[in-house]
Amino acid sequence: MKVLPTVKTPADLRNIKRELLPTLCEEIRQEIIQTTSKNGGHLGSSLGAVEIITALHYVFDTPKDKLVFDTGHQAYAHKLLTGRQSKFHSIRTKGGLSGFPKRSESKYDDFGVGHASTALSAALGMAIARDQKKSDARVVALVADGALTGGMSYEAMQNAGLLGSDMLVILNDNQMFISKRVGALGKVLTKLLTKKYVQLAEEKAAGFLKQFDELGNNAAKLAKRARSILFPGTIFEEMGFRYFGPVNGNDIEAMIEVLESVKEVKGPVLLHVVTKKGKGYTPAEEKPTKFHGIGIFDADTGDTIGKSSCITFTKAFSDTMVKLAKNDKKINAITAAMPEGTGLDEFRHTYPERFFDVGIAEEHAATFAAGLAAEGMKPVVAVYSSFAQRCYDQIVHDIALQNLPVVFALDRAGLVGEDGPTHHGAYDLSFLRSTPNLIIAAPADENELQHMLKTGLDSGKPFVLRYPRGSGFGIKMDEEPQDLPIGKGVWLRKGNDLTIVAVGNRVHPALEAAELLKKKGVDAGVINARFVKPLDTDILEQALKGSPRIVTVEDNSLCGGFGSAVAEYLTAQEKPFKLLRLGLPDEFVEHGKVNLLFEQLGLTPQTMTEQILKWGK
Amino acid sequence: MKVLPTVKTPADLRNIKRELLPTLCEEIRQEIIQTTSKNGGHLGSSLGAVEIITALHYVFDTPKDKLVFDTGHQAYAHKLLTGRQSKFHSIRTKGGLSGFPKRSESKYDDFGVGHASTALSAALGMAIARDQKKSDARVVALVADGALTGGMSYEAMQNAGLLGSDMLVILNDNQMFISKRVGALGKVLTKLLTKKYVQLAEEKAAGFLKQFDELGNNAAKLAKRARSILFPGTIFEEMGFRYFGPVNGNDIEAMIEVLESVKEVKGPVLLHVVTKKGKGYTPAEEKPTKFHGIGIFDADTGDTIGKSSCITFTKAFSDTMVKLAKNDKKINAITAAMPEGTGLDEFRHTYPERFFDVGIAEEHAATFAAGLAAEGMKPVVAVYSSFAQRCYDQIVHDIALQNLPVVFALDRAGLVGEDGPTHHGAYDLSFLRSTPNLIIAAPADENELQHMLKTGLDSGKPFVLRYPRGSGFGIKMDEEPQDLPIGKGVWLRKGNDLTIVAVGNRVHPALEAAELLKKKGVDAGVINARFVKPLDTDILEQALKGSPRIVTVEDNSLCGGFGSAVAEYLTAQEKPFKLLRLGLPDEFVEHGKVNLLFEQLGLTPQTMTEQILKWGK
Repeated sequence: MKVLPTVKTPADLRNIKRELLPTLCEEIRQEIIQTTSKNGGHLGSSLGAVEIITALHYVFDTPKDKLVFDTGHQAYAHKLLTGRQSKFHSIRTKGGLSGFPKRSESKYDDFGVGHASTALSAALGMAIARDQKKSDARVVALVADGALTGGMSYEAMQNAGLLGSDMLVILNDNQMFISKRVGALGKVLTKLLTKKYVQLAEEKAAGFLKQFDELGNNAAKLAKRARSILFPGTIFEEMGFRYFGPVNGNDIEAMIEVLESVKEVKGPVLLHVVTKKGKGYTPAEEKPTKFHGIGIFDADTGDTIGKSSCITFTKAFSDTMVKLAKNDKKINAITAAMPEGTGLDEFRHTYPERFFDVGIAEEHAATFAAGLAAEGMKPVVAVYSSFAQRCYDQIVHDIALQNLPVVFALDRAGLVGEDGPTHHGAYDLSFLRSTPNLIIAAPADENELQHMLKTGLDSGKPFVLRYPRGSGFGIKMDEEPQDLPIGKGVWLRKGNDLTIVAVGNRVHPALEAAELLKKKGVDAGVINARFVKPLDTDILEQALKGSPRIVTVEDNSLCGGFGSAVAEYLTAQEKPFKLLRLGLPDEFVEHGKVNLLFEQLGLTPQTMTEQILKWGK
Repeated sequence: MKVLPTVKTPADLRNIKRELLPTLCEEIRQEIIQTTSKNGGHLGSSLGAVEIITALHYVFDTPKDKLVFDTGHQAYAHKLLTGRQSKFHSIRTKGGLSGFPKRSESKYDDFGVGHASTALSAALGMAIARDQKKSDARVVALVADGALTGGMSYEAMQNAGLLGSDMLVILNDNQMFISKRVGALGKVLTKLLTKKYVQLAEEKAAGFLKQFDELGNNAAKLAKRARSILFPGTIFEEMGFRYFGPVNGNDIEAMIEVLESVKEVKGPVLLHVVTKKGKGYTPAEEKPTKFHGIGIFDADTGDTIGKSSCITFTKAFSDTMVKLAKNDKKINAITAAMPEGTGLDEFRHTYPERFFDVGIAEEHAATFAAGLAAEGMKPVVAVYSSFAQRCYDQIVHDIALQNLPVVFALDRAGLVGEDGPTHHGAYDLSFLRSTPNLIIAAPADENELQHMLKTGLDSGKPFVLRYPRGSGFGIKMDEEPQDLPIGKGVWLRKGNDLTIVAVGNRVHPALEAAELLKKKGVDAGVINARFVKPLDTDILEQALKGSPRIVTVEDNSLCGGFGSAVAEYLTAQEKPFKLLRLGLPDEFVEHGKVNLLFEQLGLTPQTMTEQILKWGK
């Protein structure tokens, strides 16, 4: 008989026999592998954290005690143990469970996440609230080593060290930082794990452990069984945390014992736990980067299923970077812990001396690029659109204000699909458009992307290139990238009744919509705007001469996006016009397959057509 | 005969007799005091850093060697030594020198600054560019202790420690963090300065100093004269930096000697320098917070001159916070190192247990507030508008997405005047407006501010309140703050010919403009919009019924701001309309008195009137 189905809530978990816990963890693991193979998801981190999460719910009194995840890649076991087993099959599908902790989904999800390095700040806020309410609830943050590369974690540690409020931080060290350790902190953590260091620490531990005995804890036993040791002088101690570790985080018995001990320690505590990413699934253990975030795969073999035959936008970016950097030694590439996701792994392989992975540190990435540009280099910062929100100030203050030639390649712009609202790049046009000096371009397809990347690098200006996740449109790639005229759109089709002005990945669907409209007797022209800033006002004037009816289409928020720029222009000129703006609504768009979302939001050729026909009446 | 006038450039500096340097520093100090007393500015930091900057230009080969300031509050001596003495009287005035380093102003300003914590990132970028160009230029970053509380500094240190490129970081420790030390790092730095620690360090130093002798430096002499010591095991060493210090940074001889030594050390080096904020000017030494950034004052007495009789928006915020928090224990106040600037010092004084200064750490401030709100508290984050750009992602991802009731009090929204483009809050409406769930309010005056603050706290929603720097309009304050209807504007005046829809601090000038228009025979109505989001579309409909002519007025960028929201609405409805949007242009607005800037940009009553009359024809 299976154990997992008997665990509806953490309360059930605390009632089962302790010796069944390893079996439970194995069942959780199998459930995660089977479901992720069908739905895609963050497999590696979730497998690695099964014992930690099980031990946390076993030892702590959730939901009274607060459990804050960082980034949330590792939370699948948490979902399975907190009343969501029956819905787990729906994870990451439209209308189903979110792939991340989400407050509106469960009372056990104390804080929603998706972006890295937020947990320490949120947990500290909760700890202070707990103190003010004079509650005895405990606050625990589960943070992976990668999240500690973000400066925000450091800001929070500093503040926590000062305030001294009780909180437990579990540092889940899978020695990866998503793909591999970067940054000086990585060295520190690695040092903490060396045999020599651990030995030295154990020798010193005896003295320190006396303090534990005085606290009434079974500290000596703990040290033997869980290899848990107290060791001073690390960066965490400097920040005001008491450091415990390292502990084998894939040993459920060890985890329970150490948690039972450290939960009694007052003040900010950091418990250093070592886990194996992908633990228990050989393909994921062997290829942790591939299985970090993965699409549908064969659970038996780990082979990915159903790859598109078109190249992705990311691949077009990747290839063009390698091609252009061959003859221009000034080109440098910077990523914030996403060499594979952004396609810069090829560049890293080919030009390692011009490649920089700065960790999950978008702020530094941007201003580091500004420093390179100030000294004559041509840096390209490749980052996901939603993570670029992290370096907005740096784009304004360090790059645009100084008019420095930094190219931002914003991958995952628009809707990303299954990762949902934390990851949709729904706002980049809105928040960047008001930045003076900035050029903002959005390619209609993978071929246009290569030309725009060259255009950006040749522009000598701050330049944002934003493009979507996933497959291109199967467009034949031109032999060589060519400069495009900056701020100029192109007519794709003339039409007498109205003009659709589309941008980015909605250009080809707009062309299809024009075909559908033709069948309904509406003769629509189509413009590929190419640039959101500067806006091509000449081509808008041409459109107005043909017809006063203008339809804008974009995969950005209607609030302040491309259509808003067109509205600003049209209202400031003299000719009569009618404007229909199609794009993302002023609400957080949920997770689900991109095509289903586009259909719901009226941005597929068919649904665009319906909206235009309705407006046309 | 004075020394300073003979120093036109750093090359001149390197040629004067070394014994004249203390006299030179004294002359620089007097020049700074006299000019700042007339123009206002960042006095304390600039006085404290005179010897450091003089020594840097003396020892390093600027401008070939790169000198990156952090925040830039301390750069006045730098301006005086790099060819800008004759223009120094114009600092912070319209058309004159900037108060901050600025690339377009001088070839000695290697990187423009204003916001904190950027120097390490920029300097690292420059160091890498230098390596790629195989140049032997040196790269120096001058960073105050406060800037190290920002997470971005930590991201950069991590990356610098990994890359190992040669760079020198001067940590100018004035033990202030703008007003006083906050955070665990402050404890670390303080520890490094304790007598016991320094003694211990000096004992240990003998051994370490041998390495210096081997390097061919006069390390022993250095240790005696400058009390410079090498000490391992600090957080900086963990990050991969070699740590030297502490050194008395107000001793020019000591500074020159230590710089000549450490400039030969390879890899990332941190030199810990201790200075006195306000050094050499008694009023500033005694009241460092008052003289951090100050308006016009009497150079002899240090007394501030010409205070307005109206209370400031900041004061209205300050008073209302104290008033509302009396009966609502859930109200918490958070600042990022700006208790005085934001007016939260009164709150700190009255409710110290609910006040949090987190350091220059806006990201953490926002998510810490989210954590408080998630557990039922009512946090208010008071931060300057331009610094809120630093926590844009946290506002979207941690607060708005979870619909958590955090109130942001964005002070210094719109134009700030003399501090210029790094500090103007010109974009908040643009970058925040696309965020779902967020309420955005802008009070017309100091009295409306108190009502809006209460409204925000009672709303139970993410709420942004943005208001300008400086004096209110002398409006009588109502006895008690009252809730305002969210998303509703008010008619201030009816008119048949057109309607001015103004928001924030342009509402009263718009009323004046309506008076001026009346004299020209134009009957203009005036609406105080109050809310930018949700937009009051009902009141816009009412306006359209009266006249199709709508004029929007705001002190935010015309790109994506309030007028843009109105354009979005008007283009989506059926009635005919004409729209004129007045606001800040799509360019970085320079520094200068706010009224002069508003006049130039057409946002005073007179210039608004002219624009409207021109459009009206």
